[in-house]
Amino acid sequence: MISWKNLDTLASFKELQETDAVKLAEVMSGESGAERVKKYSVPMAEGLAYNYAAKAVDEKILDVLVKLAYEAQLSEKFEALYNGEVINTGEKRLVLHHLTRGQLGNAVVADGADKRNFYVEQQKRIADFANKVHAGEITNEKGEKFTTAVQIGIGGSDLGPRAMYIALENWAKKTGHFKMEAKFISNVDPDDAAAVLASTDVAHAIFILVSKSGTTLETLTNQSFVMDALKKQGLDPAKHMIAVTSETSPLARSKDYLDAFYMDDYIGGRYSSTSAVGGAVLSLAFGPEVFADFLEGAAAEDRLSTEKDPRKNAAMLDALIGVYERNVLGMPATAVLPYSQALSRFPAHLQQLDMESNGKSVNRFGEPVSYVTGPVIFGEPGTNGQHSFYQLLHQGKTIIPLQFVGFRNSQIGTDVDIQGSTSQQKLCANVAAQIVAFACGKKDENLNKNFEGGRPSSIIIGDQLNPKTLGALLAHFENKVMFQGFLWNVNSFDQEGVQLGKVLAKRVLAHDTEGALAVYSDLLNI
Amino acid sequence: MISWKNLDTLASFKELQETDAVKLAEVMSGESGAERVKKYSVPMAEGLAYNYAAKAVDEKILDVLVKLAYEAQLSEKFEALYNGEVINTGEKRLVLHHLTRGQLGNAVVADGADKRNFYVEQQKRIADFANKVHAGEITNEKGEKFTTAVQIGIGGSDLGPRAMYIALENWAKKTGHFKMEAKFISNVDPDDAAAVLASTDVAHAIFILVSKSGTTLETLTNQSFVMDALKKQGLDPAKHMIAVTSETSPLARSKDYLDAFYMDDYIGGRYSSTSAVGGAVLSLAFGPEVFADFLEGAAAEDRLSTEKDPRKNAAMLDALIGVYERNVLGMPATAVLPYSQALSRFPAHLQQLDMESNGKSVNRFGEPVSYVTGPVIFGEPGTNGQHSFYQLLHQGKTIIPLQFVGFRNSQIGTDVDIQGSTSQQKLCANVAAQIVAFACGKKDENLNKNFEGGRPSSIIIGDQLNPKTLGALLAHFENKVMFQGFLWNVNSFDQEGVQLGKVLAKRVLAHDTEGALAVYSDLLNI
Repeated sequence: MISWKNLDTLASFKELQETDAVKLAEVMSGESGAERVKKYSVPMAEGLAYNYAAKAVDEKILDVLVKLAYEAQLSEKFEALYNGEVINTGEKRLVLHHLTRGQLGNAVVADGADKRNFYVEQQKRIADFANKVHAGEITNEKGEKFTTAVQIGIGGSDLGPRAMYIALENWAKKTGHFKMEAKFISNVDPDDAAAVLASTDVAHAIFILVSKSGTTLETLTNQSFVMDALKKQGLDPAKHMIAVTSETSPLARSKDYLDAFYMDDYIGGRYSSTSAVGGAVLSLAFGPEVFADFLEGAAAEDRLSTEKDPRKNAAMLDALIGVYERNVLGMPATAVLPYSQALSRFPAHLQQLDMESNGKSVNRFGEPVSYVTGPVIFGEPGTNGQHSFYQLLHQGKTIIPLQFVGFRNSQIGTDVDIQGSTSQQKLCANVAAQIVAFACGKKDENLNKNFEGGRPSSIIIGDQLNPKTLGALLAHFENKVMFQGFLWNVNSFDQEGVQLGKVLAKRVLAHDTEGALAVYSDLLNI
Repeated sequence: MISWKNLDTLASFKELQETDAVKLAEVMSGESGAERVKKYSVPMAEGLAYNYAAKAVDEKILDVLVKLAYEAQLSEKFEALYNGEVINTGEKRLVLHHLTRGQLGNAVVADGADKRNFYVEQQKRIADFANKVHAGEITNEKGEKFTTAVQIGIGGSDLGPRAMYIALENWAKKTGHFKMEAKFISNVDPDDAAAVLASTDVAHAIFILVSKSGTTLETLTNQSFVMDALKKQGLDPAKHMIAVTSETSPLARSKDYLDAFYMDDYIGGRYSSTSAVGGAVLSLAFGPEVFADFLEGAAAEDRLSTEKDPRKNAAMLDALIGVYERNVLGMPATAVLPYSQALSRFPAHLQQLDMESNGKSVNRFGEPVSYVTGPVIFGEPGTNGQHSFYQLLHQGKTIIPLQFVGFRNSQIGTDVDIQGSTSQQKLCANVAAQIVAFACGKKDENLNKNFEGGRPSSIIIGDQLNPKTLGALLAHFENKVMFQGFLWNVNSFDQEGVQLGKVLAKRVLAHDTEGALAVYSDLLNI
C-alpha cells in the first residue's frame, strides 16, 4: 500500500536533519579521498558510472538516505507509475514515457489499447517513413530527395529533440549514420522562423510540426510562417510537412500533412524525447537504427532505476542526495556541467525537465508544502564554463552543487598533441581537477586567492557519447527528477504555472486589458 | 575623498533592512499599477527605457536606495574608475573598458601612452584591415577573398563577441551590412574545433586568435588544431591568421600572423566586447561602421551612467534594486529573459559578466564579507523559456527576480498575421502578460492553479535591436555589475577563483597527482 506523504512528515527526513554534516574538504583529502572515489560509484547502463565521492555524504548520511528512500516508498511509487496508475493527479493522467522504450512491468491498457504496442507501432511507422525518405521513395513534388528536416515545436517539442540532435550530430557524421541535417524553429519571435528559412533549401526540406494538443500558439504560428515560405516558392505545403501530435488533436489525420505520427496525453512534453516527438526528427536525421539504440540505452537505464537499494540505483541516489542538499543544506541551485561540446544544449533540456517538473509549491493533493522543492538548474559545457561563471562556484558566498559529465573519448577522434597531451586528455584533466578543486579547495593567506572547498559535485563518466549512452544519460535524469518529485510529494507531471501567462497574452492581443497590462501593451505598441 | 566600506557598515543599508517591504501584487493591481508603469521608467540611450514598475519598490524604498547610492559614493567611484585610478586592487590595474568607446573624464595615461588614443588607434587599424579584406586587398595565398571569419578564444574572448555576432547577424543581412559569416571555436574538447573546421571552407577562412596573455591553454591548443587543418590543405597558417592580444604577449609582433591588434591589461576579458576582442570579428563580419555604431550606443549609455541621481541612472538603479533583492529580500538568482531570438546567447554572456565579476567572498581589501554577493544568473530567450522553466518562476517555492528585454519591432521584418495579430505582436503581448502574471498572480481555490504573484521583474524596452541599441544594452549591464561591485565592496575586475582548477589540471597532465585526483585521473583514462 502506497502512502503519499510530505517530506517533512517522514521520520527519516527528521533524522537526516539531525545527522552531522560531512566536512567534504577533509574527507576528500589524502587516502580517504582516494578510497571514496573508488567506493562511491554506482554502475549505470551502457558502461556509464555515477560517482558521488565528492558529494557531502558519508556512511551515516547514506544510511539515513537509504531509510528515506524506503520510507518514501520510492521504488513502489515508480512501480505504480510504470504499471499504469494515475500518477499525474492534477491532470488525472497516467505517466507512460518509460513505455516508449520498454516494458518495465505489467501491460498498460488505456484508451482501449495496449500502450506499449501503441508506442512501438508509432516507432515502426516512423522508421518505415524515414527509410522511405532516405531511399528516395518519399520525395518532394519533383521526385527529389529531401535533404533537411526542420522541426517546428516549442518547449518539450524543441529542447529535448534539439539537445539530442546536437549530441549525436558529430557522432553520426563520423560513423556514417548521418542522413540529413535537422534544424529547429521554436520561438514566436518572427526572426526565428525567418532566419531558419533563409538558411534552408525549403524545396528540399521536410517540416515536422510537433504539438501534442495541436493548439500551441507558437507552433501554429510558425507553421503558417513556413507554409507562406513554401507557397511563395510555388510549393505545396502538404507535400512538405508531417505532424507529430495526439490522435485526438486537430492535426491528426489531416490532409495538410504527408503523414502523422502519434503520442498521447500520457507523455509530458519534457519527457517526450523518446516518443514520436524525438523519434521523427532523430530517425530522419540519423536513421531509425540510431533512434532504436537511443531507446535501448534509455530502457537499460530504466531497468536499473527499478533497483530497490538506492546505493545500487544511480538515479535514486542522485535524487536523494539532491534533496539532502536542497532541504537540509539549503542550496538553491544546481549546475549541470557536461565536459562535452556535443552536450552544449543538454543543460537547457535538463533545465526544463527539472524546473518544470518540480518547481511547485503544492503537493500532489493541492496542499501547500512548507519546504523548498526543485532548485534552479543552469549550466554550460566545460571547459567553457571554467572561463565564465566558475568564479562564483569556487569563491562565491552561496554554495551551488555541481553535476559533471565526462567521457574518456571524443566523438570525432581528430585531435592534436600539444605540450605532451591531446585535447581530449586536457578536457578530462580539467574535469578531474575541477572536482578536486571544488571539494578540497586550497588554503592561501591572501584570502582573495583562498579556496575554502567544501563544494559538492558528482560526475557521470562514460567511454563515449553515442546513442546508447545518451539514452542512458537522459533516462538517468528523467528518473532522478521523478524520484525527487516523489520525495517532495509533488506532481512532477503537470505544469499549471504556465497557464496564467497564456491567458493574459490572449487578453493583450484582444485589447481586453486594463491597469498595468494596458500600459505595458501601449509601451510595446501592441 | 572616497571611502570603500562594506555594505553592512552603511547606515542606509541598515535603514533599507528596516523599511517595510512592498506588497507587489497589491501595488501592481488596478490604477496604482497603471500609474507605476507610467512613472517608474528611466530613459536609457538610443531610445531604450528601463521600466522597474514591477520591482518590489515604492517611494520609501526608493528614497533609501537613493541614500544608499550617495553613501556608497557610487558616482564618485565610477568617476575614479574612468579617470584611471587602480580600481582592480587585486591585480593592481586600472579598469578602462569604458575608454574603448569614449572619454568620460580626464585623459588616462598608462604604459607611456594616452589610453583613449591607444584604443582608437587599434579600432582604426582594425577598420583599415577589415576594409581591405572586404575589398579583396588582403586575400588568401591565391588572391581569393576571405569568406568566413573564425574566432578562436574562450571565456571573454568568446561569449561576448559570439553573443554580439548572433545579436546582429540577421539585422546585418536585412540591412545590407553583412560582409562574411563568423564562427567560433572555444572549448578544448577536440570535437568543438573538429566540427567547426569540418563545416568551414578553410581555404577562404581568416582565423582570429584571441588571447590577452597569449598563454590560454584552450586557445593555443585550438590554434594548433586549426594550423594542422590548414597545413593538411597545403595552406600557410600565417597567411590565414590574425591575433588579438596584449602588446607584451608572445603572440604580439609574431611572423605567425597576417597582423595583430591590441588590447591591454586594463580590459578584463568579460568587458572586452567593445575592445579589439569584439572589434576584429564584428568589423570583419559586419564592417567597421557597424562596430562604430555599436561603440556609439555603448558610449551614450556610459554617459548616462555618470548621472548622480539614481532615479535618472538606469544602470545604477538596476544595481541598487538588485542588491535590495539579494541582500534584504534574500533572493539567490536572477533570470535574464530577452524576448528576442537574436539575444539567444546574451544571457550566457551576462552569466559570465555578472558571476565572474561579483561571485566573490572577500572585499577589495581581501577581507571576508559577511553578506551574500553576486547571484546566480541564467536565462533563455522568450517565448521559449515560457514553455520550459517558467513553471518554477511562477509557482516555485523560491522567488527569482526577472530581467526582461523587449523590442517593438523585429529585425528581419518578415511576419505572418494569424488570429488577428502578427508574430511580433504575439511576442510583445507575451512579455507584457508575463510581467503582470508574475507581479499580480491570480487567486484560484484550486491551489495547484493558484498564482501568488509578488514576483518582481523589470523590463528594458526598445524599438529594435540594432548595433546602437545593442551597445547601449551591453553598457547598461556592464555598468550595473560595476555599481553592484561597489555596493558589495568587492573587486569586480579580477577572477582568482579560476586559478586553482588550472593548477590542478596541469598536475593531472603531468601525472603529478595523488589521492582523489589520482583516482579520478585513472577513471578518466588520462
